[in-house]
Amino acid sequence: MSLTNASAEDAARAAKLSSRKLATLPTSARNDALDAVHDALAAARDDILTANAKDLELAQKSAKDGQLNPSIVKRLDLSRPGKFEDMLQGIKDVRNLEDPVGRVDLRTGLDDGLTLQRQTCPIGVLLIIFEARPEVIANIASLAIKSANAAILKGGKESTESFKAISTVISKALDKTDVPNDSVQMIATRDVVDALLGLSQYVDLVIPRGSNDLVSHCQRKAHMPVLGHADGLCHLYIHPDADKDMSVKVAVDSKTDYPAACNAVETLLVHEDALKTILPAVASGLIAKGVTLKCDQQSKASLSTELSKDEATKLEDATDADFNTEFLDLVLAIKTVSATPSDPIAAVDAAIDHINTHGSHHTDAVLTSSKEVADRFCNGVDSACKFWNASTRFCDGMRFGFGTEVGISTNKVHARGPVGLEGLMIHEYRLVGNGQTAAMYGSGGKQYKHKKLPL
Amino acid sequence: MSLTNASAEDAARAAKLSSRKLATLPTSARNDALDAVHDALAAARDDILTANAKDLELAQKSAKDGQLNPSIVKRLDLSRPGKFEDMLQGIKDVRNLEDPVGRVDLRTGLDDGLTLQRQTCPIGVLLIIFEARPEVIANIASLAIKSANAAILKGGKESTESFKAISTVISKALDKTDVPNDSVQMIATRDVVDALLGLSQYVDLVIPRGSNDLVSHCQRKAHMPVLGHADGLCHLYIHPDADKDMSVKVAVDSKTDYPAACNAVETLLVHEDALKTILPAVASGLIAKGVTLKCDQQSKASLSTELSKDEATKLEDATDADFNTEFLDLVLAIKTVSATPSDPIAAVDAAIDHINTHGSHHTDAVLTSSKEVADRFCNGVDSACKFWNASTRFCDGMRFGFGTEVGISTNKVHARGPVGLEGLMIHEYRLVGNGQTAAMYGSGGKQYKHKKLPL
Repeated sequence: MSLTNASAEDAARAAKLSSRKLATLPTSARNDALDAVHDALAAARDDILTANAKDLELAQKSAKDGQLNPSIVKRLDLSRPGKFEDMLQGIKDVRNLEDPVGRVDLRTGLDDGLTLQRQTCPIGVLLIIFEARPEVIANIASLAIKSANAAILKGGKESTESFKAISTVISKALDKTDVPNDSVQMIATRDVVDALLGLSQYVDLVIPRGSNDLVSHCQRKAHMPVLGHADGLCHLYIHPDADKDMSVKVAVDSKTDYPAACNAVETLLVHEDALKTILPAVASGLIAKGVTLKCDQQSKASLSTELSKDEATKLEDATDADFNTEFLDLVLAIKTVSATPSDPIAAVDAAIDHINTHGSHHTDAVLTSSKEVADRFCNGVDSACKFWNASTRFCDGMRFGFGTEVGISTNKVHARGPVGLEGLMIHEYRLVGNGQTAAMYGSGGKQYKHKKLPL
Repeated sequence: MSLTNASAEDAARAAKLSSRKLATLPTSARNDALDAVHDALAAARDDILTANAKDLELAQKSAKDGQLNPSIVKRLDLSRPGKFEDMLQGIKDVRNLEDPVGRVDLRTGLDDGLTLQRQTCPIGVLLIIFEARPEVIANIASLAIKSANAAILKGGKESTESFKAISTVISKALDKTDVPNDSVQMIATRDVVDALLGLSQYVDLVIPRGSNDLVSHCQRKAHMPVLGHADGLCHLYIHPDADKDMSVKVAVDSKTDYPAACNAVETLLVHEDALKTILPAVASGLIAKGVTLKCDQQSKASLSTELSKDEATKLEDATDADFNTEFLDLVLAIKTVSATPSDPIAAVDAAIDHINTHGSHHTDAVLTSSKEVADRFCNGVDSACKFWNASTRFCDGMRFGFGTEVGISTNKVHARGPVGLEGLMIHEYRLVGNGQTAAMYGSGGKQYKHKKLPL
């Protein structure tokens, strides 16, 4: 790894070359490199914390001048208890995951002595753009090495000194291993990112982890696929047969556990038959946590009579735009959905239509005691993640048991939902024969056997 | 299905709506629709052949005037013996494939009573642009219905009357089934295609099956992913330990079985130690089939002394551009690769570097009797398909045993290589709980179990 001042094209070409070398290394060579990186970072703790202190000092100054959000300052600080150890442990955790490369998922005997095999292989070169937290660089470098992908990294500018220190240590550590040094490169400036987005012959996939603006920018500019999501407009739908206490718990958690997260709920859809039975308790629970409710006419009229006067001050009128808004704050839009008299579960369809039209295809949840309703909801909603009686906040690579996460994808092709190591793999086909020709098969010739073989 | 005159936006919106309905239909409903389509086409044979005869008459006239390739006229003719039956059988074959929807490939107990499941689901709306052959419309419509994807189809203009007749029959047949009529729509003009390429909110994936120009056009214009390949610049590398007879057979088949195919070989790479031992026989075999050889200096000098005078007239000097050219004809570029004395298999690396630099990441093959050489080749080459001792022509969905093929993808993400039904699937995550919240877990709270469950 190096903090490169090379041109975008030089960096990208070097990454591509490294990626092919990396793809041929056995599991042990990649794991050894991760051990080396771990040990080198542990040994260089003091130097890294000294560099981090410089970033911190600058950031504190900027925060005092009102130019930087104080929460960023806190996230920058690698000297907080446990932070450095967590970073080191993260490298060990990734190292100890099963090797995702070369997993065979299809074997077919096309004929005797002609065997087709499909197996996983790395994507090639990843361009990963991430936020300020300095420990993320170690995590992403580990993921890249483990998955045998070359990576070009661009971190937030507030962590510049920390990144320099960490990348220097990683670079020296890699020099003593079989993993090519250029497998992980760090770039310092945003203009290099823009140049890289045009180099589809070298960069195979872009993973922007950050603001909607950053993701949208990459989606517009990139000549290669972009993995990620610009918006996280998640919904929770309450069916009349839902458990009331459960509805309160799940709605409050989905909205307030971490309101700025992409998997926080932004619109609550309520069946009209639940307006009096379930919604008041849900609204009280949300208001108690400081949530402002932007209600459609029907839900507002109903809640106004059910809530206390104090609580009712937290009710606002929803505009059309509110149902297309990712608030990322303690604000929730509420909309009533109605059933036609003839079909008791048609209201699910109305909720589904709203979600498919206004949502961002990220995570949507249903609260109901009926499996039929839940299935209809999950089959109808066009999203990466569909949850039944659980908080939208569970949409997360760590919580899903993927060990780690490079992002959450709302793309329809390739990786979808939380993306772990497996999402950094693609597949390839290998065919082994003994001189067979296509002309040998077909009308008048041999027939294909297409025998399914054990993996 | 309808031959729509709707605006691109109306057609795309209708397709999107249908796709959500289609996604909720059980296997039986989609299979019933395929049966209905099959039976209706069988019953309407005469009407369809009458319409086809009109296309044929026009095409024969154009061919006579020199405005249309006679091979296209032949491919248009649905009345050729067996052609109509093959079309009908193709629908039955697709109908009888295993349902690709809803296959569970991951189940994890995040905690007791909190179960995560990953399962396949359709992509949504496909825009498929294909060549003139009229029977392809029935094949693609079947694939779409079987895979629960809505499809908007655009066929070659030479088949207009046949398409009209076939789509009318399919449309009437679908009306009596649960599959929405708008699930398969046919568009008549190219300008509608261009408009659809901009509607990423409705169209999820574009599959252009046709000329390099068509694919490149879609790749440039589309706001959504494009599945396919513009080029098929495939390589064959001969190592000195390769079997001579096998080399001749495989090289001749790879080049001449169907030179216009994307999986035909375009560049032959030869180890310098094989120039005298293997290449002459290979060159003779190719020349006997009418292939012109564009050789680098070293191979030409060698072949000139080994071949007969007559044969040597088929040797030409290769230019740099020849090694970047998809000839799609009886022309083959030949290049010598050299080993450094210190490493007997370094020549494989030189071949790999050439392929990764000049190839199109489609299909590349190695001829060698050494597993070590073959593995090094397959690990190092950055292509969808890597073949050892077999013809590049085997890269094909039917030959791979996928039942059918919508195209061959050189994309690095999503489907890669020959794409069958499985490539028309993506996955989704479903989580079932009983009211769990994210706040219940983590420091001080419950721990995730991440128990691997049987599928």
